[in-house]
Amino acid sequence: MAAESLPPGQRPPEHPGVLSPIFWRDGKVVMIDQRRLPDAEVWNAYDTWQDVVRAIVELEVRGAPAIGCAGAFAVALAAPTIKTAFSLRGILRQISDARPTAVNLGAAVHRMANAITASRDPVQEALAIWNEDLAACRAIGAHGAALLPDQGTVLTHCNAGALATAGYGTALGVIRAAIAAGKRLRVLCDETRPFLQGARLTAWELSQDGIPAEVIVDGAAAHFMSTGQVAAAIVGADRIARNGDTANKIGTLGLAAAAAHFDVPLYVAAPHTTLDPNTATGANIPIEQRSEDEVRRVGDRIVVPAAAGVRNPVFDVTPARLVRAIVTETGVYRAPYAF
Amino acid sequence: MAAESLPPGQRPPEHPGVLSPIFWRDGKVVMIDQRRLPDAEVWNAYDTWQDVVRAIVELEVRGAPAIGCAGAFAVALAAPTIKTAFSLRGILRQISDARPTAVNLGAAVHRMANAITASRDPVQEALAIWNEDLAACRAIGAHGAALLPDQGTVLTHCNAGALATAGYGTALGVIRAAIAAGKRLRVLCDETRPFLQGARLTAWELSQDGIPAEVIVDGAAAHFMSTGQVAAAIVGADRIARNGDTANKIGTLGLAAAAAHFDVPLYVAAPHTTLDPNTATGANIPIEQRSEDEVRRVGDRIVVPAAAGVRNPVFDVTPARLVRAIVTETGVYRAPYAF
Repeated sequence: MAAESLPPGQRPPEHPGVLSPIFWRDGKVVMIDQRRLPDAEVWNAYDTWQDVVRAIVELEVRGAPAIGCAGAFAVALAAPTIKTAFSLRGILRQISDARPTAVNLGAAVHRMANAITASRDPVQEALAIWNEDLAACRAIGAHGAALLPDQGTVLTHCNAGALATAGYGTALGVIRAAIAAGKRLRVLCDETRPFLQGARLTAWELSQDGIPAEVIVDGAAAHFMSTGQVAAAIVGADRIARNGDTANKIGTLGLAAAAAHFDVPLYVAAPHTTLDPNTATGANIPIEQRSEDEVRRVGDRIVVPAAAGVRNPVFDVTPARLVRAIVTETGVYRAPYAF
Repeated sequence: MAAESLPPGQRPPEHPGVLSPIFWRDGKVVMIDQRRLPDAEVWNAYDTWQDVVRAIVELEVRGAPAIGCAGAFAVALAAPTIKTAFSLRGILRQISDARPTAVNLGAAVHRMANAITASRDPVQEALAIWNEDLAACRAIGAHGAALLPDQGTVLTHCNAGALATAGYGTALGVIRAAIAAGKRLRVLCDETRPFLQGARLTAWELSQDGIPAEVIVDGAAAHFMSTGQVAAAIVGADRIARNGDTANKIGTLGLAAAAAHFDVPLYVAAPHTTLDPNTATGANIPIEQRSEDEVRRVGDRIVVPAAAGVRNPVFDVTPARLVRAIVTETGVYRAPYAF
C-alpha cells in the first residue's frame, strides 16, 4: 500500500486535544509534513518503515524526541516483515542511522530491539515510547514554568515545541505551562537558518495557541538581549552529555555566548531520553553536516556564487558553563551537572 | 532622460582596474544593482538625483562608504536644477534621509552643501569624496594587514568590501592587502540575514579575486570559533561613536560576543568618514528598522505565518569593549578609544 495524504487537523486517537506531529493510528504512522508549514498543513499516513526513514532523512519529521518516536514506529512497522535476526539488525541500523546527532533516535531503536528480543508487542512498545514522551513534556513544563518571569519576553531558537515531540513540547512546553499558570509572556522566535524552523514551525504552533510570537533573524538575538528586551532564553536539545554540554540546532552556541555576555539566563529543556549516558562531554557528540543546498539556495534562487564554498553543520555544542539550568521531567538541574 | 541599463564589467574611467559599485561617468552615476548579485551582474546609469535616492532606499547600492558616495553624486546631479537656497535645503534633506544609520551619507551631503555654498564645482567635490574613499580603503588595508595571521581563516559578516565602498573595501580591503603581502588566508562569510550580503556579495567579490571563500549561516559562526577554525574576525562599520562603540549590520554584536567568549580577535575597519564626532556612545546611534517583508518572505515563499509578528532591526551596536582594534586610513586604534 502506498503513502496516503490526509486533510488538515489530524490528531492522535487517544489524545484528540493534542497537536502531535507524529502518531500511530490503525497500523499506520500519521505525520505532518513539517517542510510544508506554515503555508500548507499536509498530513501523510505511512505503512512501511522505509517511508518513515525517508521522512526522517528528508526532515518531514524533525526534532529529537519526535524522531525518537518516528524511529520506534518505524521498527513497529518493520517488525512483522522481519524474518531473521540478521535482517533485524540491518533494518534497525538503517533506522537508527537516519540522522546522527539526536540520541533519542538510537535510544528508541535500541529499546524497540530489546522489546522484540523479549517478545513484547512492538506496537505497544512504540506507543509506550510516544506516551512517555508526551508525559515527559508535560512534566518538563510543570518543573520549568517557575524559571520564567511573571511577564516579559522569552527568546527561543529553532523549534523545541509540540512539533518536535510527541506533543506539547520541551522549551515551548515550559512556555505553555508558564502561560497556563498565569504568566504574561511573549515569545521572540529566532528564524533559525538554514531550515527556518523558528519562523515556519515555532511561530506557527504558538500562533495556533494564541501565544504572541514575533520572528527575528538569528543575528538579531544579541541586539534584543543587549537592549534589555529579553528576560530569558529557553531552547531544546538533541543530545546532552553527562557533564551538561548540550548539542542543539546550529546557532544555539552563539545565542548562549550572547546570553552569558548580557546576563540573560539560558535554559535547556529536554526529556531524559535526550541525556546520553554514553557521552562524557560535548567533544564526543557527532555533528551532522547537511547538504550545501540548504544554504546555497533560498527558495528557487541560488544566493551563493558557484565559485564559493558552503559549510553547513546543523548542530553545535553549548558548553555546560553557558547553561543556567537544565529542565527535565524529573526536575530542574544546575551546574555542576552529572547525569 | 531615463535610467539606462549597461552590460557587465563596467569600471570607473580613471581606475579601469578597480571594481567599484558606484562611480561618475559622463555626467551620470553608474552603479551595479546589488540586489541582483550573484546571479546577474546588472549595471545602471542614472542622471537624476531622485533615481539615486531611490537606489539608496531600495538597497540597489548599500554599504556605508558607498552610500556616502551615492549621496554626493546625487547632490552633484541635483545642483544644476536647484533654483533657491530653500529648495537646496529640501533636496539635501531628502538625500541625507534616504537611510538613517550610516553617518557617511549625512556627512557627504553636508560636505557637498558646503561646496555649493562656497561656489565650488559639485561634480569635482563628489569625485573628491569618491577618490578619497578609494584611497582610504587602500590605506586601511595597508595598516590592517599586519593584524591578520600569516595563514588561517578569517571570518567576516555582511559585506564590507569593494561593493560597500568606492572600491577595494574596508574589512575586505584588509584581507586583500594581507593576501597581497603574501599571507595565506581563507574567508568564512556569514550569509548575513535578512538581505544575504555575505552570501550574495562578499562571496561574489572574493571569488572574482580568486580568494577562497566559504559561506555559513550566521548562527554557525560561534561553532567555527569554538572549534578553533577561526583565527580572526573583521567587519566594517556604519557609524562609530567617539568612544569606539560601533554600529554595523545586525548580527555583528552576537558575533562580537561569541568572539570575546572564544578569544578570537574582532577587528573593525572603517574610514574616518564613518567616525561620528557628534555621537558620544552607541546609545545615541539610531537603528534603522526595515520592512517585515525582508524576514517574512524568503524568495517567493512566505515563511512566517500571518498571525505572527516580525521585528527587523538591520543594525546593532557593538560596545567598544568587544572590539580588539579599529583600523582606519590613519592607523590602528585600540581601547580606550577617543575619536
